[in-house]
Amino acid sequence: MDMAELGRALDNVRTTVPLVHCITNYVTVNDCANALLACGGSPIMSDEPDDVEDITSICGGLVLNIGTLNQRSIEGMRVAGKRAGELGHAIVLDPVGAGASKLRTDTAAELIDTLPVTVVRGNMSEIKTIAGSAAATRGVDVNPDDAVTEDNLAASADFARSLAAKLGAVVAITGAIDIVASADRAVAIRNGVATMGKITGTGCMLTCVAAAYAVANPDDVFGATVAAIAGHGLAGEVAAARMAPADGNGSFRTYLLDAICNMSADQLMAGAKIEEL
Amino acid sequence: MDMAELGRALDNVRTTVPLVHCITNYVTVNDCANALLACGGSPIMSDEPDDVEDITSICGGLVLNIGTLNQRSIEGMRVAGKRAGELGHAIVLDPVGAGASKLRTDTAAELIDTLPVTVVRGNMSEIKTIAGSAAATRGVDVNPDDAVTEDNLAASADFARSLAAKLGAVVAITGAIDIVASADRAVAIRNGVATMGKITGTGCMLTCVAAAYAVANPDDVFGATVAAIAGHGLAGEVAAARMAPADGNGSFRTYLLDAICNMSADQLMAGAKIEEL
Amino acid sequence: MDMAELGRALDNVRTTVPLVHCITNYVTVNDCANALLACGGSPIMSDEPDDVEDITSICGGLVLNIGTLNQRSIEGMRVAGKRAGELGHAIVLDPVGAGASKLRTDTAAELIDTLPVTVVRGNMSEIKTIAGSAAATRGVDVNPDDAVTEDNLAASADFARSLAAKLGAVVAITGAIDIVASADRAVAIRNGVATMGKITGTGCMLTCVAAAYAVANPDDVFGATVAAIAGHGLAGEVAAARMAPADGNGSFRTYLLDAICNMSADQLMAGAKIEEL
Repeated sequence: MDMAELGRALDNVRTTVPLVHCITNYVTVNDCANALLACGGSPIMSDEPDDVEDITSICGGLVLNIGTLNQRSIEGMRVAGKRAGELGHAIVLDPVGAGASKLRTDTAAELIDTLPVTVVRGNMSEIKTIAGSAAATRGVDVNPDDAVTEDNLAASADFARSLAAKLGAVVAITGAIDIVASADRAVAIRNGVATMGKITGTGCMLTCVAAAYAVANPDDVFGATVAAIAGHGLAGEVAAARMAPADGNGSFRTYLLDAICNMSADQLMAGAKIEEL
Repeated sequence: MDMAELGRALDNVRTTVPLVHCITNYVTVNDCANALLACGGSPIMSDEPDDVEDITSICGGLVLNIGTLNQRSIEGMRVAGKRAGELGHAIVLDPVGAGASKLRTDTAAELIDTLPVTVVRGNMSEIKTIAGSAAATRGVDVNPDDAVTEDNLAASADFARSLAAKLGAVVAITGAIDIVASADRAVAIRNGVATMGKITGTGCMLTCVAAAYAVANPDDVFGATVAAIAGHGLAGEVAAARMAPADGNGSFRTYLLDAICNMSADQLMAGAKIEEL
Repeated sequence: MDMAELGRALDNVRTTVPLVHCITNYVTVNDCANALLACGGSPIMSDEPDDVEDITSICGGLVLNIGTLNQRSIEGMRVAGKRAGELGHAIVLDPVGAGASKLRTDTAAELIDTLPVTVVRGNMSEIKTIAGSAAATRGVDVNPDDAVTEDNLAASADFARSLAAKLGAVVAITGAIDIVASADRAVAIRNGVATMGKITGTGCMLTCVAAAYAVANPDDVFGATVAAIAGHGLAGEVAAARMAPADGNGSFRTYLLDAICNMSADQLMAGAKIEEL
């Protein structure tokens, strides 16, 4: 990976201030908005079917996050996604809880099958569910192990590349080791800290930031996604290093936003831990 | 109260990481999720009637918080509550604003009348409304004073025990002095600080934490509820002690989560102020 | 402007603890609730049409914020607004995103046309949209420049006074320079820092705080609005002065709430930068 690309990806976000339309869950929506502002983007939230077409039209990208979905917001995702697709906007899908309920699994499958999704970001269980659904509707059956480890890294990369080829999208599987894949390329990212799992919303925030990166770097969405994910993990490392004995997940949440806000291209290039697979 | 029980209750949460399904208001939902993570549990939020049955099935407990209720989320509470009841899950009801509107009063009454609620937690006005509703539907009329004070402590304990017997649930009345009661037992808890009223959501957070404690300690829900409430008040004391002159309710909110996150069994056993009534 | 008025306006909020019913977007609702508590008020959120009439009846003021509006919450705004109007409550409208979508523009127009709105607060683009809508429905056409600057300050004040006269409401246009106008008076406020734009919700928070000020100072809503806006900008300055090198928008958000919480009448009188126009 050319580290200079990562730095340029970050700088492009800060100089172009991409406006991202988010249809996202109400649990972490405030963190998503502040993370978008921190990374250099600009958020607008709207999920009403009668409102989303106009809103998404003035944006550069669209986030579809199915946490706390409801029938109204699902319809909002359909309408917004169709319009964003017509406009050639970056669409980033976060299949929160796919596999945990039929409605979430079906909704994730519908969105991925009907919309020109640019990036899918989830944990391995969610991405496996996506792959299974693609299998059901496209005749392919994928069944990798659940967590990405050093032992299954090559197989996980194969799975991710294969799914990326099938979906025509960048696939980002985040966890202790993150994998980002396109049809013909995959990298492992080893940034991040376990503390990130002690606050809600790190994944949701990352999805929104990844959308800003995709919008600001349309010629290299793969590289942009790598930059977003490495930067997010690195911000987690910076936040963790700041923790004092009395600090807990409340302070960590604040420090994480601070670190995203203060992240520079130089810092990202020096701290990113990326391996071609 | 055997202090060792309190410490065990806390440790059981941290070692079993109970998954709690929350149908809760959108004002404090982020704080609820982070409080659950801080105490050692794991949150999942879902309120869509078509989604809640699957989601609650994979959890150990269910929180029903009627703040910012709407007709869709009320139906979600009915469906989730029925399923959680069938599965024997802990159900914790937070009747936010019961008494302030007919819809909230009626919804709280319906939920308590139709579901096998395990714990009810609210302030005295909300709990009185619950009791009044029970009265209306079950022929009992309760009318204690509104705030628990040293003067009405014995009467308040009688009221709480009586209501607990009627509901077949643990009743937790929180305020300057907290009361937790089962049919044959009641304690007063004198932890906490007034600053907790200067941030939104301390009650909602506590309800979620209490659900995690109930799930992790199924053999002693009364003791688990006492531990959760004493621990929450103690966390408030720790947070208040950390306040610097420039700090206000923004910092207090962060410190409160930090204190929940860092609370140990030893700290809880040393700091809990519990009196049998 | 008599500075002593500002101080009295602040003290009146702290001594009367106005209860404010907020129908507001789910992105910043937690910040709104904590800002209301910080300034000395008390929040209650409810958007269900079947719930809002009872809830607004027990309050002193109503906030209608159309960010993340949906058909249900719009109906909630109609019902609550009608009842609040009948009761003579202060109604503060925040037309978030008016001009960005037809639904938002139409909803803002409907609310302003049908309800006895007391204060409208928005950025210049939103307020221009309101004015244009008033134009469409009332035969007036206003088209000032978008940002208030030193160069167009007099013209902006004329626009604001004219709109205030048409609407029969206090008009507050916030930005680098804020303008508050009634039919026959306008002031510029030069408090605030650019960092406030790096977190979501400063506008929404201010709208809620302004509602608390209007409720607590019914005899001088103009002065109360000036106090709320100057105080908010001043709190931003205090928060910015507290920023350490590692701090970003996460910490700024916390510091802003802290500063609102700790703001005194003396501090407001000493720091407010107000010019009659």
